[in-house]
Amino acid sequence: MSDTRTASTFPPPVMEARRWIEGVSFPPHRPLLNVSQAAPVDPPPEPLRRAMAEIVMQDASAHLYGPVLGLPELRAEIAATWARDHGGPVSPEQVAVTSGCNQAYCAAIAALCGEGAEVILPAPWYFNHRMWNDMAGVRTVPLDTGPALLPDPEAAAALITPATRAIVLVSPNNPGGVEYPAALLAAFRDLCRARGLALILDETYRDFDSREGPAHDLFADPDWDDVLVQLYSFSKAYRLTGHRVGAVTASPARIAQMERFLDTVTICPTSLGQKAALWGMRNLGDWLSGERAEIIARRRAMEASFARLEGHGWRLMGCGAYFGWIEHPFEEASDALAQRLVHEAGVLLLPGTMFTPENSEAGRRQLRIAFANVDAGGINQLETRLAALPAR
Amino acid sequence: MSDTRTASTFPPPVMEARRWIEGVSFPPHRPLLNVSQAAPVDPPPEPLRRAMAEIVMQDASAHLYGPVLGLPELRAEIAATWARDHGGPVSPEQVAVTSGCNQAYCAAIAALCGEGAEVILPAPWYFNHRMWNDMAGVRTVPLDTGPALLPDPEAAAALITPATRAIVLVSPNNPGGVEYPAALLAAFRDLCRARGLALILDETYRDFDSREGPAHDLFADPDWDDVLVQLYSFSKAYRLTGHRVGAVTASPARIAQMERFLDTVTICPTSLGQKAALWGMRNLGDWLSGERAEIIARRRAMEASFARLEGHGWRLMGCGAYFGWIEHPFEEASDALAQRLVHEAGVLLLPGTMFTPENSEAGRRQLRIAFANVDAGGINQLETRLAALPAR
Repeated sequence: MSDTRTASTFPPPVMEARRWIEGVSFPPHRPLLNVSQAAPVDPPPEPLRRAMAEIVMQDASAHLYGPVLGLPELRAEIAATWARDHGGPVSPEQVAVTSGCNQAYCAAIAALCGEGAEVILPAPWYFNHRMWNDMAGVRTVPLDTGPALLPDPEAAAALITPATRAIVLVSPNNPGGVEYPAALLAAFRDLCRARGLALILDETYRDFDSREGPAHDLFADPDWDDVLVQLYSFSKAYRLTGHRVGAVTASPARIAQMERFLDTVTICPTSLGQKAALWGMRNLGDWLSGERAEIIARRRAMEASFARLEGHGWRLMGCGAYFGWIEHPFEEASDALAQRLVHEAGVLLLPGTMFTPENSEAGRRQLRIAFANVDAGGINQLETRLAALPAR
Repeated sequence: MSDTRTASTFPPPVMEARRWIEGVSFPPHRPLLNVSQAAPVDPPPEPLRRAMAEIVMQDASAHLYGPVLGLPELRAEIAATWARDHGGPVSPEQVAVTSGCNQAYCAAIAALCGEGAEVILPAPWYFNHRMWNDMAGVRTVPLDTGPALLPDPEAAAALITPATRAIVLVSPNNPGGVEYPAALLAAFRDLCRARGLALILDETYRDFDSREGPAHDLFADPDWDDVLVQLYSFSKAYRLTGHRVGAVTASPARIAQMERFLDTVTICPTSLGQKAALWGMRNLGDWLSGERAEIIARRRAMEASFARLEGHGWRLMGCGAYFGWIEHPFEEASDALAQRLVHEAGVLLLPGTMFTPENSEAGRRQLRIAFANVDAGGINQLETRLAALPAR
């Protein structure tokens, strides 16, 4: 018998980083710059908060159990939005609402894999994907993305074994910031279909993609649901992180399998959070466009700052949506450097070691900056502090 | 490689039962009596809804990510409450808040078991415990509870193997309704301690226990956390089912293990739900006493009704908290009978087959009634309709 599920993986990186700043005091002239977690720092806009307060008072169903797969109106709204945005057929029966996007991933893996299955993850990866694979008894097969941070379908094909069940892509990427070209996603779709695998596509950051128009045409394929499992989050778009609402879009047969997992793990997503997400989809389109424009402006600020930081040996390898992926100029490993940054620069970020396979040389050299959490002034501050940081 | 996790278990019983009533019309003189799910039908009391509306408008943190293990104030309030109620030491570090009590169970199993572990479940059991065991690769070892619906420690001891990791008890019991005597819980605690197992005690319905004073003295044992993992739910006490807030109380080392699971599966429980639960604990003590008194009155109505139904061959085997566990008088299996009840009596309840091992003769003869969902008038209606039901 194997050891416990939880012993097979590592402690939550974000919580570990939070512990680095416990008891540390930051002087008034250099307050903490927290770019560790992709998390809005402000609450939802006031009209949404007002709508939620009214729902709390007037709508009893906001406090009671709902269907395991989510409120029918929200499933329908998501389906209609994906269909409209991508020009393809998506029905409410192909959508499930989940308690956040992490849970959507867990449900997808539970429906696709058993003990000993293999899943291909481009590295650097989103750590919670790796953690769930570990706890689900699924072997993570790393697919190195190289300096461009883009996975190569041929390299992926070479990693497929009889135990492989899925390839996981995240676009815009966490942690790399890279927006995957539509043709690359289509190539992975073709590979997965040809080899009988699922393509899990995590689009948590889709609303902040800098490209105009649809980011891919996967949904335009009338048979998309024989291969695609798409994941989404309402946390960032409407600043609902604390309400835990995400979604998964897949074939009705796979959704029915996921229902078993979702029922057992949480019974249903929060009813109020779902109603807030629905209100946001119906009323905050223009507001969200403004949010996207602001994030894109911050990205430009990041790019400008790191162009100047190149002289100090810092390098911006990828930048987009919420994240910059950085190569640092020092000999020390990224996890040691990240802790030094707390004390010497008042900066909290996550080291590359949290996103890469054990003993990865790339992970030692690289860092993730969740720049979307700070405005242009904060990004300037970050530049100043990194430029001033001495080698150890 | 094994098949998928979700294929190893069955579809959610409550959702299956909901499908039985889809498209069925119930005449005005005989509306549907839904006693299938343990779910309050009314929203939280108005003062709590008002407090929540104010939090939504004023408290930004109610919308944002919180710590994986829950808000420190809520963890402290739970610890203080358990310590006060049970006269023993419970610290905030021994408490984690979860997205409902189902998730508390999942986290506990993930921290205790790996693939191939065994867990002893008294039968009839709570179906989601069985479902999680299946999906976690844990073998469920049934412990028959006999006509008294009480598990026997000696019978449990005979089922222990080197793969056994825990014994799971639910008190007040779902689905049996039975309140386990304190001495029985202590005997199981002693057995688990002697054999190096965890005792998982699900106390979702503790607030509706009909006994005065503490239901057990497990927390009075200063070393309780070497063996006990206690689960709790805020869903029923304050009618917060739709907000998904539960808790688990265990050793700090086990809580740290569970943090990995909780982070990966949901990141954190909803911030607003936690604040609502905290407000309830601090302000709704008297209100909750009234709720308990009402539930106990409904239990008495159930007992009176089934005393009269004995002449028709119905038998109330267990009754308490939210549930009555019933033996029916017919030849047909309980799952066929449950579907016939929808059409011939306008009653939705769950058959014993959903709570018992495959091919269990007891499961075929028995039914669960979630009587707490209906008032005394509804229980009277139920009696009338069951009395009138002919054999097929």
